[in-house]
Amino acid sequence: MKSLREREIIRLLTKQFVGQLGVPLGFDDDVSAIPFSSKTWIILKTDMLVASTDVPPGMTIQEAARKAVVATVSDFGAKGVQPKALIVSLGIPAPAKKRTVQDLARGLGQAVREYGCKIIGGDTSKADDLVIGIAGVGFADPDRLVLRDGAQVGDVVAVTGPFGKSAAGLRILMSREKSDIARYPSLVNAALRPKARLSEGIILAKSGGVTSSIDSSDGLALSLHQLAKSSRKNITVHTIPVPAEVRTFAKQHRLSSIRLALYGGEEYELVITITPKKFPDLKKRVPSLRRIGIVEKGHGEVVAHFRGKWIRVKEQGWEHFR
Amino acid sequence: MKSLREREIIRLLTKQFVGQLGVPLGFDDDVSAIPFSSKTWIILKTDMLVASTDVPPGMTIQEAARKAVVATVSDFGAKGVQPKALIVSLGIPAPAKKRTVQDLARGLGQAVREYGCKIIGGDTSKADDLVIGIAGVGFADPDRLVLRDGAQVGDVVAVTGPFGKSAAGLRILMSREKSDIARYPSLVNAALRPKARLSEGIILAKSGGVTSSIDSSDGLALSLHQLAKSSRKNITVHTIPVPAEVRTFAKQHRLSSIRLALYGGEEYELVITITPKKFPDLKKRVPSLRRIGIVEKGHGEVVAHFRGKWIRVKEQGWEHFR
Repeated sequence: MKSLREREIIRLLTKQFVGQLGVPLGFDDDVSAIPFSSKTWIILKTDMLVASTDVPPGMTIQEAARKAVVATVSDFGAKGVQPKALIVSLGIPAPAKKRTVQDLARGLGQAVREYGCKIIGGDTSKADDLVIGIAGVGFADPDRLVLRDGAQVGDVVAVTGPFGKSAAGLRILMSREKSDIARYPSLVNAALRPKARLSEGIILAKSGGVTSSIDSSDGLALSLHQLAKSSRKNITVHTIPVPAEVRTFAKQHRLSSIRLALYGGEEYELVITITPKKFPDLKKRVPSLRRIGIVEKGHGEVVAHFRGKWIRVKEQGWEHFR
Repeated sequence: MKSLREREIIRLLTKQFVGQLGVPLGFDDDVSAIPFSSKTWIILKTDMLVASTDVPPGMTIQEAARKAVVATVSDFGAKGVQPKALIVSLGIPAPAKKRTVQDLARGLGQAVREYGCKIIGGDTSKADDLVIGIAGVGFADPDRLVLRDGAQVGDVVAVTGPFGKSAAGLRILMSREKSDIARYPSLVNAALRPKARLSEGIILAKSGGVTSSIDSSDGLALSLHQLAKSSRKNITVHTIPVPAEVRTFAKQHRLSSIRLALYGGEEYELVITITPKKFPDLKKRVPSLRRIGIVEKGHGEVVAHFRGKWIRVKEQGWEHFR
């Protein structure tokens, strides 16, 4: 039987549940929502980190636990919602060691302090592989919630920071190349200790100028495609911010730094569209914001136009099922 | 290093998070809560089903998915809270087959129809082992929420149904003994298609007569110990309802049917304490309710007094980490 890619699985599940029941958001956006009143929606997100898939060599258990929280917090950031409380489901290989549990607790504790939320409960199971499931809850004014489908023709396409560091860092960790680990500490650090753009996302959503938003954990290319498809518009990318270390690393290994930035994944920047006249003000309030392109009329295509050359941006990213 | 049992892990995490932050409920009760207003708490529960640990031979993927929902719904039932929405985190071994995803969707769909809730989103990951994480959300009036610590001296200890069927059924499935599978269909069915006592739990909580409650998924003995400890009272058990098939099965295999009922686990009955004068009325409204003992003065001991003999009820149950 044919094997499915992650997005096909999501589509199959969406068909079964979300469409049928008519609830807002769902499998198809960064978070899910339960309308609680006309002023308040309860916002939910779960994310599951599986050690064999999501934890590269060299990442400690403490870092893995922190990253599991970052992944969930990042989705809240994309929607401009402060996560209030988290519950943690741990699958721990037997025999469970005190040290492992303490490291998990330390990593989780560190992350909740960074992002101002609380862990209010959880459960543990025995598992063959370390599994860290995080469910987050927050509250949102439905009128302020930034979805994926609001991009308008003429909007600025922007990102909250540069791309490619985490993708390069992951490659270095996977290769276990000691000289690279020593040479590119900031790339390795980006992979081991990613940061969620929570405060930026909240500022951006409050501004009222953001028309659509997604986090880039599946890669920049896929994130752009998802915004374009959900909003039924085209996106043209003119530039992608790639840090100098990523370019140096790419050159050394004969890789394309643009490909690392577009298809790398595991990065937690936000990819957003902004009403053009609001962009200068938002750039002041979120200095890391970079303009990368423009929203155009269309039906969900994404192209790049770099130094006079058109490049197709493939609908491809960091997917687990490949 | 010493390996930890599930409760020690919970204790370690509780120390780190819940005590420190002063939030109600937490790792130590069936669900977690976020106070939203004086009249409304948001109730959360996650549960993770891991195929290698929680899925016995002979259980289909559809049944496993349904059971994952039942486990979460059961905790809501114990607190008398209707779960409104679920989010699903799936860890699926690669290559993910369409059939697997459809079976998962069917099992999840069946369960949410049974218990009147909705699946509103989720995510998928690649995993070595099939993992089904369920996060449920509901709303509760904090004054009506039944915790574990309210048992009073003189209260009736009651259960919502008989014990031992699921424990016997699991043994039959684990043994792969075809003659037993054919001979004891109701025991096998109890293990494959457990039921959560949601409607019963809601009726009981609404009555105002229930002083403490827990679901029995970790086993009857452990559930009684948890109520006794949380409430700082003793519990004396006078009888345990054990169905005739369980007694027949136990006799055939030279097992103690009382031990199966006390320490079996994976059963989803509710174990509750009830103000004595309310018991007759509640028994009418929840006919499966059975009186099994009484709450007495003390500091968390549980003993059984069967046919003139005192039996120690060990603080032992269906734990994953053993």
